[in-house]
Amino acid sequence: MTPAVQRQWLVAGRPAGRALEPTDFRLAEAPVLAPGEGQVLVRTAYLGFDPAQKSWMENAASYMEPVEIGGVMPGSGVGVVQESRHPDFVPGDVAYGHFGWQEFATVPAAGLAKAPDGVSLSAVLSVLGGTGRTAYLALMKVGKPVAGDTLVISGAAGATGSLVGQLGKIAGCRVIGIAGGPEKCAWLVDVLGFDGAIDYRNEKVRSRLRDLCPGGIDIFFDNVGGEILNDALARLAPRARVVICGGISRYNFDPRSPEMPPGPRNYFNLVFTGATIQGFLMPHYERDYPEADARLADWIRTGRVQPRADIQTGFENAPATLMRLFEGRNIGKQLLKVADL
Amino acid sequence: MTPAVQRQWLVAGRPAGRALEPTDFRLAEAPVLAPGEGQVLVRTAYLGFDPAQKSWMENAASYMEPVEIGGVMPGSGVGVVQESRHPDFVPGDVAYGHFGWQEFATVPAAGLAKAPDGVSLSAVLSVLGGTGRTAYLALMKVGKPVAGDTLVISGAAGATGSLVGQLGKIAGCRVIGIAGGPEKCAWLVDVLGFDGAIDYRNEKVRSRLRDLCPGGIDIFFDNVGGEILNDALARLAPRARVVICGGISRYNFDPRSPEMPPGPRNYFNLVFTGATIQGFLMPHYERDYPEADARLADWIRTGRVQPRADIQTGFENAPATLMRLFEGRNIGKQLLKVADL
Repeated sequence: MTPAVQRQWLVAGRPAGRALEPTDFRLAEAPVLAPGEGQVLVRTAYLGFDPAQKSWMENAASYMEPVEIGGVMPGSGVGVVQESRHPDFVPGDVAYGHFGWQEFATVPAAGLAKAPDGVSLSAVLSVLGGTGRTAYLALMKVGKPVAGDTLVISGAAGATGSLVGQLGKIAGCRVIGIAGGPEKCAWLVDVLGFDGAIDYRNEKVRSRLRDLCPGGIDIFFDNVGGEILNDALARLAPRARVVICGGISRYNFDPRSPEMPPGPRNYFNLVFTGATIQGFLMPHYERDYPEADARLADWIRTGRVQPRADIQTGFENAPATLMRLFEGRNIGKQLLKVADL
Repeated sequence: MTPAVQRQWLVAGRPAGRALEPTDFRLAEAPVLAPGEGQVLVRTAYLGFDPAQKSWMENAASYMEPVEIGGVMPGSGVGVVQESRHPDFVPGDVAYGHFGWQEFATVPAAGLAKAPDGVSLSAVLSVLGGTGRTAYLALMKVGKPVAGDTLVISGAAGATGSLVGQLGKIAGCRVIGIAGGPEKCAWLVDVLGFDGAIDYRNEKVRSRLRDLCPGGIDIFFDNVGGEILNDALARLAPRARVVICGGISRYNFDPRSPEMPPGPRNYFNLVFTGATIQGFLMPHYERDYPEADARLADWIRTGRVQPRADIQTGFENAPATLMRLFEGRNIGKQLLKVADL
């Protein structure tokens, strides 16, 4: 039975130039809306979290619709269709997409995808959706791996980084991950099969990169920025490709603040290597989404890609769950279990 | 008559992390050597100067043979063949290439090229050789201009920059140059036909870029680095290409010095635009040299490219002439007339 009233988290502040605070969000009640023509009503099983959500709240990401104060906090989710007024969905289907932070989402079917068979509810958001497309497209279309390449990933134990490393192994790369703490590093090497890991909290990144990448870095996949990016630029191989996918070291600072990590002084090594730095903007690769979705689903089913999620529980904990990303507390995809479906 | 003895400038210091000083060079006399098998003896008419020569003295450029203290200062030249033991050259030919700073160069024919008909001696080094190849290949193969693109060039009144702007016009771009002082800016617009110029010494680069590039920058061709690069990164159009060709704001500083210009903080705009920053390393484009040479020679002959040089005189002034580049005093290619041939 679908209830008449549900809970939502609304945007109450713009965290530009600072860390997220609990007062940036407001818990509210709202009616569960019956779907209109072309819409689907889904019940949320899991919400998925991404550092980019903070920039959405700031209206700093040009590819997103502006976010209003008082509007439902945008975010991805996976759940079960309750009612449908679109021919592609029937009640009981598992669907994922942009739900927003709410227990029941009444959304256009065009913004949803049906989960493929053989993929668990929590794996959907870990390996498919925006995370999977980002990892697959940024690595394959921007990084352009060639078997034998040395691929180094920062933020390697996060949702995107840990997937990029697994895709790099499938593509025949030597994969080195940079992550915070021995537990994450052990997971990368022992479970995911990375060829090496650097614990940036306890090791010197630049000298470890020298040891682990004697022939230089062919692809650097950056989720962090700051000194880690600068250290990687010092070790580029000729014609290296640097993929800028994220920069979590920057997201809590104002661009003019002295705390904002400096730009990469070593960018000039590009001239000595003929290397490239490119930003990954997902909408530029829209025509490749079906390729990404199909290959990822296949690799999950055949066990070549291992989903892993850090699962928190309770809808009321959504803001705290988002904050975990900025504290580096998650291993794998950060999820919140909203309902046991 | 070829004399028995000539003058040479030898490398006497390594100017790493500081400005060039007169004591980094030593004037010496040396015998004029008869050419061996496969070699050619040329008399130098002009020496050509490039900021990269400072990095050669520091052995900081991985693509160059190491430079020894006490060795002849490396550099390009154009002159007239006096004796030849190679079938491609006969006395009287105009040849250019790596002469080193000497009045007579006895060098392998493989390192020389014959000047095409219809190109004056001073134009050879201004528009052909390393300068022409750099401008043509870095713009066409890395910048990849599309007619209608907005092309912005830093160091626009220098040898490479002024040529890049002219090639950009031929390719159908809107061309904006950034240069120091009203005289250089007037030359870019009034003589070379640039669509606009920004005097970085007297104008705010970032706000002028906003005015002059309302649709953003499609190609930024950088010879300078520092704040100018950072300002350009703030104005990138979607899928922009940033070509790192040089960074003259950096060449006098140690990487660890507080005076070294910071890295470009705005690099993260790459993520919002899907833009690319690529370093230009000429040897990676060796197979395209004949294409560059042929098109440039044709454009000089047909007047579509105007060579301009700042010509100093007197072999004894070679070090001071190199230093002019770092003082921003040259308009066009910096040359030194060594002999009136």
